[in-house]
Amino acid sequence: MSLSTPTATHTIRAGAFGNGTHLSCRACGAKSELGPFYACMECFGPLEVGYEFPAITRAQIEAGPKNIWRYQPLLPVPVDVASFPNTEPGYTRLIDAGNLARELGLRKLWVKDDSGNPTHSFKDRVVASALSATRELGMKVFACPSTGNLANAVAAAAARAGIRSVVFIPQDLERPKIITTAVYGGTLVAVEGNYDDVNKLASEIAGEEEGWAFVNVNVRPYYSEGSKTLAFEIAEQLGWRIPQQVVIPVASGSQLTKIDKGFTELGKLGLVDATDYKIYGAQATGCSPIAQAFRDGYDVVKPVKPDTIAKSLAIGNPADGPYVLDVARRTGGVIEDVSDEEVIEGIQLLARTEGIFTETAGGVTVATLKKLIETGQLDPDAETVIINSGDGLKTLDAVADRVGPKVTIPASYDAFVKAGLQ
Amino acid sequence: MSLSTPTATHTIRAGAFGNGTHLSCRACGAKSELGPFYACMECFGPLEVGYEFPAITRAQIEAGPKNIWRYQPLLPVPVDVASFPNTEPGYTRLIDAGNLARELGLRKLWVKDDSGNPTHSFKDRVVASALSATRELGMKVFACPSTGNLANAVAAAAARAGIRSVVFIPQDLERPKIITTAVYGGTLVAVEGNYDDVNKLASEIAGEEEGWAFVNVNVRPYYSEGSKTLAFEIAEQLGWRIPQQVVIPVASGSQLTKIDKGFTELGKLGLVDATDYKIYGAQATGCSPIAQAFRDGYDVVKPVKPDTIAKSLAIGNPADGPYVLDVARRTGGVIEDVSDEEVIEGIQLLARTEGIFTETAGGVTVATLKKLIETGQLDPDAETVIINSGDGLKTLDAVADRVGPKVTIPASYDAFVKAGLQ
Repeated sequence: MSLSTPTATHTIRAGAFGNGTHLSCRACGAKSELGPFYACMECFGPLEVGYEFPAITRAQIEAGPKNIWRYQPLLPVPVDVASFPNTEPGYTRLIDAGNLARELGLRKLWVKDDSGNPTHSFKDRVVASALSATRELGMKVFACPSTGNLANAVAAAAARAGIRSVVFIPQDLERPKIITTAVYGGTLVAVEGNYDDVNKLASEIAGEEEGWAFVNVNVRPYYSEGSKTLAFEIAEQLGWRIPQQVVIPVASGSQLTKIDKGFTELGKLGLVDATDYKIYGAQATGCSPIAQAFRDGYDVVKPVKPDTIAKSLAIGNPADGPYVLDVARRTGGVIEDVSDEEVIEGIQLLARTEGIFTETAGGVTVATLKKLIETGQLDPDAETVIINSGDGLKTLDAVADRVGPKVTIPASYDAFVKAGLQ
Repeated sequence: MSLSTPTATHTIRAGAFGNGTHLSCRACGAKSELGPFYACMECFGPLEVGYEFPAITRAQIEAGPKNIWRYQPLLPVPVDVASFPNTEPGYTRLIDAGNLARELGLRKLWVKDDSGNPTHSFKDRVVASALSATRELGMKVFACPSTGNLANAVAAAAARAGIRSVVFIPQDLERPKIITTAVYGGTLVAVEGNYDDVNKLASEIAGEEEGWAFVNVNVRPYYSEGSKTLAFEIAEQLGWRIPQQVVIPVASGSQLTKIDKGFTELGKLGLVDATDYKIYGAQATGCSPIAQAFRDGYDVVKPVKPDTIAKSLAIGNPADGPYVLDVARRTGGVIEDVSDEEVIEGIQLLARTEGIFTETAGGVTVATLKKLIETGQLDPDAETVIINSGDGLKTLDAVADRVGPKVTIPASYDAFVKAGLQ
């Protein structure tokens, strides 16, 4: 398929999207050319990148850089992608979580710890992939609506790449989240309204303004492919094999569906044995439309109004809802949800057992893992991986009232002894 | 030299400290056996680990794990150190900082970004090294006095290792710093007094209580060796060579002296060519006793009472002061200091140009780099590396009043256009 000309002034170079060859509709399967498109011309369904992969070897990947670009042949990015300034996300730690496993009665558990990314969430992966597409499409503004992790990742990536960024946030966003985005010096725009209003405005601007790349709107097909690297890294770090069970936090559901896509691609390419795996999704009860649809046996998701401390998962009308349901049912997994109280306990449990301080989304994942085991929905004898998608430093309020000093003492050895600290 | 028996109940196993063979006094050179010792029996000078290195190859290191344990043969840790649960710090990104280099008029600049460590500061390195010594010495409590990064690192490492931790903090410490330590579930003790009082209490307890390992007090010789891994990683990531100039933040001065030791060891072992390098130190003017001594031509450092926003560097009586002066003078470097206003500008400069959000200590380093260039003390044509030792998420207050939304608009496309955002 030939490459397109998205604007009057820019021609897409050959190989701009690596082994990506087309866009295909996830709803009706119609194919279209690669470009700044995200909705199917036939049915308005969501588009995703399709590939024609050549032979790809483990050795080829292992010789690559220690970040997501080692998987360049599997992503919609050019072979020279690593030569453009970027935040170099990925290749985060896969932690053998023996303490947590023992506490939960699991045989073998790993934590894929994406808090080690440049701005401390998995969003650095998808933003890096979106940034490459933005550059290759000749678009000039790197933008997003966001309330947190995505805003940080977009502003940081744009600063390093030297591209203009415009980040739209609800005007009542908490001060720390404003600082951690504004510090990178791009344009931060406060919008009168809630996140839904901001999101709607973003879509409107994306439709009107040529050259504006809203990472999670009009370059979403390229953006979301970045999440496949979580699957690639887990498999490589396990010694090129697929784990039996994976528990993944669910907001839009994109990360979950792309991890499934990643494992499938690795199997098809012969980079791993195509062994069976089960994909589990984790939601907060206060925003659990997909878990509810799963329990009800529905194929579509009924939108909800979010009310949970897990703000980074609080998408009431998740774009990938039907696809998440499909992946969970096809692989034999489950979508489950947990209360805010369980989320807080999940954060503390992971910190206490493994020394990993996760954000509320990670609390959701740990608590869901616990619930899945207790309810017999997850096999404690099968090797399991959970995704820690972000960092506790960004959601301190969640545990602020729960932890603190055990005791206050005068500055003397006698006081230390009297306090029973020996 | 034979290995010691530090307690009545514990015998140190052979190879407990890898290729480490003894402790030697940095002041008088007297040698003593490996054990829970930190002050010279002859002159009370500080002890450091001495080695008898076998032949060590690049291939051997490159085959190791992607964390500090790849350098096990160069550290005072056993060959099986990686098999004990630890936070797996190190192998953080070395970022080609082309944007910042251009802005400052430098030919080639790299940022060694240690905010990517598990608890987001370089302290994870030294704590991991101290944890190994604590285990090998049979000590039972992992402890420290701290006001921030070290507290986080100790509490996290202890949680994962399953060892009791006791962290002592001044009672008036800011709430966020309390949360980020207490969440790991160890014992957090608030002490009535300032950091000096807390530190003094820690030394007292270390002297009285057998089996208590205060990482930066009585296991300091092992702890501080962890900082050598910064030098090892920089050299390896540059393709096994030593950069010409390095700018390093200075608190106690330990990190700076150990980076020098690391480069020296690599050269002696033939792992790199022993090329010349200059070591520069960065302090905040409000706590700049070593920079002052450097300017005055003194060999010793006159203690000061700290008054700076760079709290993680605010050590008024730096233990390694004389050794820092020696390294800077011997290598042809400089110790310089910058105002708090420059620190804030430094944080914003690094974020805006490279998408890296550093804590105040990193602001000190960037601002010092700028000042060194402007005053002709650092060669703009020589390849330079700066250390980003920590994360801006931990010191949000430093930039809170400086950054924010450019504009607030109603949630409509018209408002977007009227605000001139196109």
